[in-house]
Amino acid sequence: MKILALDSSGLVASVAIVEDEILVAEYSIQYKKTHSQTLLPMLAEIKQMTELDLGSVDAIALAAGPGSFTGLRIGSATAKGLGLALDLPLVEVPTLEGLAYNMYGASGYVCPIMDARRGQVYTGIYEFLPRMEGEIHSFQMNIICGQCAIAVEEIIQKLNDLGKPVIFLGDGVPVYQEKLAELMEVAYFLAPSSMNRQRAASIAALGGQYYKNGQSISADTHHPVYLRLSQAERERQAKQKEGTEKSYA
Amino acid sequence: MKILALDSSGLVASVAIVEDEILVAEYSIQYKKTHSQTLLPMLAEIKQMTELDLGSVDAIALAAGPGSFTGLRIGSATAKGLGLALDLPLVEVPTLEGLAYNMYGASGYVCPIMDARRGQVYTGIYEFLPRMEGEIHSFQMNIICGQCAIAVEEIIQKLNDLGKPVIFLGDGVPVYQEKLAELMEVAYFLAPSSMNRQRAASIAALGGQYYKNGQSISADTHHPVYLRLSQAERERQAKQKEGTEKSYA
Repeated sequence: MKILALDSSGLVASVAIVEDEILVAEYSIQYKKTHSQTLLPMLAEIKQMTELDLGSVDAIALAAGPGSFTGLRIGSATAKGLGLALDLPLVEVPTLEGLAYNMYGASGYVCPIMDARRGQVYTGIYEFLPRMEGEIHSFQMNIICGQCAIAVEEIIQKLNDLGKPVIFLGDGVPVYQEKLAELMEVAYFLAPSSMNRQRAASIAALGGQYYKNGQSISADTHHPVYLRLSQAERERQAKQKEGTEKSYA
Repeated sequence: MKILALDSSGLVASVAIVEDEILVAEYSIQYKKTHSQTLLPMLAEIKQMTELDLGSVDAIALAAGPGSFTGLRIGSATAKGLGLALDLPLVEVPTLEGLAYNMYGASGYVCPIMDARRGQVYTGIYEFLPRMEGEIHSFQMNIICGQCAIAVEEIIQKLNDLGKPVIFLGDGVPVYQEKLAELMEVAYFLAPSSMNRQRAASIAALGGQYYKNGQSISADTHHPVYLRLSQAERERQAKQKEGTEKSYA
């Protein structure tokens, strides 16, 4: 089984190819260029380096949101284009699940935090529990709190209520580091630089499991998950509401 | 602080740049090309993509062995060349420590296994223990058993004696999977594809800590750690021994 994976949900652009249990290629960049300048050239680079025949890919996994609106659209457009051209199914991996999967096997809770601006974070709470089926055991990633857009104080409150040690990761961590220091009542840890941002390898590994479980869709039915309205939509709604109020006046 | 990291100790070629707590770039390939075909072009690629001024790098971290003799020599030659040309210190990260660091924060023991051929593995046993100093806690990677070249049965025996759950990773896992199933008496887990091979990002993250602690050397004093004699050296020693025995006869 060969999975091509993309993540452009945040500041990182990342592409990966996983074949069975081997990470054939992974290329990640967090630099000031836009994803439209990086994502496709990076895919072309690993395709050429590993002499990849795109026709041999079984499915395309992608970080399906939430995240940066523009980033998600570039990722989705790329995945849809490839999926339609190559007649490949898409596997939508919730962005926060992909991030949490960076910490596979971790002790305690894993809490990815992405800066969602306007006082909110995209976040969730995950836990790796040993699953003792069969000879080789594995960790099951349990969702304690599914991905959502909330105030950072709210997720901190949830974690304090749960009362177990937490590992934080994601681009929201440096933004809210002072809030964490001020409000966290349970022990917490920060993921190291090697694990603290989006990785297409995690999307591929988790997406491969979803694909095996039949959780894939056709390229034309895919839409990114924004969790919130975009700025343009908010402004249109505000204008419409204003218009309605005016017409009632 | 900016760290450039290389790992070509095994089947993977991997390069990374970490600046402070940000993984600016990581590029890893596990493909049938040799490291002499991949490592430098990959470094050139991320240098160009992130407009990296090599003069801004503080230190070069590398997987310093054990591993494939040819792979280690290519990595060392590259690091030495860069270090001498740019007047940069080198940070030697023991290969098995770098691999174990992929599992930062893991519960239980972490046991990387690299296939060393001739019935042996390069391996070690590591554990992440919470260190509760200051406001933000971190995990300290403790070395339970330092890196060594031993029979796979011997490391399994050690792990059974220790009696705690273990996460295995590395290219020795598929090679010795049946032995593990047969002989392991404690619960064990296999790292997923996103974490089960060498990553230059881990070398950079761990190497950055070593560098902060003053553990760096000059490029000209670096030598890779082989842990064993190469085939050519073994054969020469056998011939010399034979010669000595003949002269005594």
